[in-house]
Amino acid sequence: MRVSVIGGGTITESEAATAEEVGRRLGERGHTVVCGGLGGVMEAACRGASEADGRTVGILPGEDRTAANPHVDTAIATGLGHARNALVVMNGDAVIAIDGGVGTLSELGFAGVFDRPTAGLGTHDAPGVEAVSSPAEAVAFVESEADGGTDRET
Amino acid sequence: MRVSVIGGGTITESEAATAEEVGRRLGERGHTVVCGGLGGVMEAACRGASEADGRTVGILPGEDRTAANPHVDTAIATGLGHARNALVVMNGDAVIAIDGGVGTLSELGFAGVFDRPTAGLGTHDAPGVEAVSSPAEAVAFVESEADGGTDRET
Amino acid sequence: MRVSVIGGGTITESEAATAEEVGRRLGERGHTVVCGGLGGVMEAACRGASEADGRTVGILPGEDRTAANPHVDTAIATGLGHARNALVVMNGDAVIAIDGGVGTLSELGFAGVFDRPTAGLGTHDAPGVEAVSSPAEAVAFVESEADGGTDRET
Amino acid sequence: MRVSVIGGGTITESEAATAEEVGRRLGERGHTVVCGGLGGVMEAACRGASEADGRTVGILPGEDRTAANPHVDTAIATGLGHARNALVVMNGDAVIAIDGGVGTLSELGFAGVFDRPTAGLGTHDAPGVEAVSSPAEAVAFVESEADGGTDRET
Repeated sequence: MRVSVIGGGTITESEAATAEEVGRRLGERGHTVVCGGLGGVMEAACRGASEADGRTVGILPGEDRTAANPHVDTAIATGLGHARNALVVMNGDAVIAIDGGVGTLSELGFAGVFDRPTAGLGTHDAPGVEAVSSPAEAVAFVESEADGGTDRET
Repeated sequence: MRVSVIGGGTITESEAATAEEVGRRLGERGHTVVCGGLGGVMEAACRGASEADGRTVGILPGEDRTAANPHVDTAIATGLGHARNALVVMNGDAVIAIDGGVGTLSELGFAGVFDRPTAGLGTHDAPGVEAVSSPAEAVAFVESEADGGTDRET
Repeated sequence: MRVSVIGGGTITESEAATAEEVGRRLGERGHTVVCGGLGGVMEAACRGASEADGRTVGILPGEDRTAANPHVDTAIATGLGHARNALVVMNGDAVIAIDGGVGTLSELGFAGVFDRPTAGLGTHDAPGVEAVSSPAEAVAFVESEADGGTDRET
Repeated sequence: MRVSVIGGGTITESEAATAEEVGRRLGERGHTVVCGGLGGVMEAACRGASEADGRTVGILPGEDRTAANPHVDTAIATGLGHARNALVVMNGDAVIAIDGGVGTLSELGFAGVFDRPTAGLGTHDAPGVEAVSSPAEAVAFVESEADGGTDRET
């Protein structure tokens, strides 16, 4: 399945390690990482997925798809600015949120709007967000809750 | 100035009374209500503003501007679906949130993204939201914090 | 009714005079001008409408509504970039196109998509565009063809 | 490179054969087909690309990515309705247009806005569209004109 990984664009080393592990575990299990395509959590999750030969999709705010981080396989330019946050969530079957500020909060709102199961690692305490304590738990949660479950995306 | 009034599309009588009072106070003070153009908090706030001869703008998710509630003066169709939530917040100088679910949460995230002063009446406890206890306090807060302050929109 | 007036952002004096007359005639007859909110045909049409005490709506590509030309009454920021062209057409009951380049061409395509009657003054020869030879003819055409006809927008 | 293939959603057998050949030639030469993800020209081009083991991206108007035709490898839901036409063009380095109605016309406008080299096979006579007479010519034209030229997308 596809999992949208959301979180801050500027993060600590510890958060980067968490995001990278989330990406790696998703990649190892055959899932595709969808993200906003830029830096911070987005880049770390894509790097992790790439290390595990997983696939990555980056949905960018600007018109230039070359702005994507180097671990994005399929970069999609939107030119929509912040409204692209809706698309990041819409294109996953589930969501894993790591840390994050107000942009991430808008995405957690959309996770509710689009009814996506959402695991949170040190992120906002928002309606419908299942707080988990490790990348492994986050991946297990979204696999158990999302339509498509453990099916690999082909 | 313009104030985006956000909140649930399905609300209680008490919440409707709150939203209507917010709209009326904004209208009396020469401010324009911006909202999502549909029912619930959106309609009650517009009704209040109209009672006070205030102006109202409704930014709709669909392609048909006649879907706006009857108290919207200027209806803007977007066809963007939920991504229009970004535009509702972007088009106000400040935000007042009343109650609300996950759609409102996405808008509170955008309020942070666009750096809009935000007063909350019984809404989510989100970063940057100033919890207030009455419509009068909500209006006073946004007037004191927003660029444009108490200037009437001409 | 509402009429979307579309055309180039950089125009000759003669084109500006045409756009201004279109705006003035629409304003005199109680119609609202919808446009992209910036310069060239957009500004000239709004100026004409304002001279006749008509109403104007400008739907902008950027996030800052103060970028609107000074004759826009209700400025709507979208942050959508060029994708906002769809909204300019969607929010009129009919379209008048004056001159214009490739942006205008995208709007003429949307005029077809949204099935809006369209009069053209020196613009692209595109499907569904009725070529007319004067602002008076353009206004007469859209009044005769659009739903809402000659009704004034209240 | 990526090539946006645009055209009608309802087409004749002859147009389908043309679109399929365009897709196949692009796939054989290592290029990725970007399209609107639905039927007609979009589906035929993706089918052709798939036959040649080429990659395909479909950028959909709705919120449900499973609406994509079966030959789309990476489906992107947008929920933007017709405004997604801007994204279809934005995400290619060049454009090949086959037949097509008013939606295609809006995309040809955006091809000009985003300055994408564009080859036309039986499509609108619009500014900047190079009329060609075969799929082979269309592919040769976009390879010669686009940044990225004959580079395969990795």
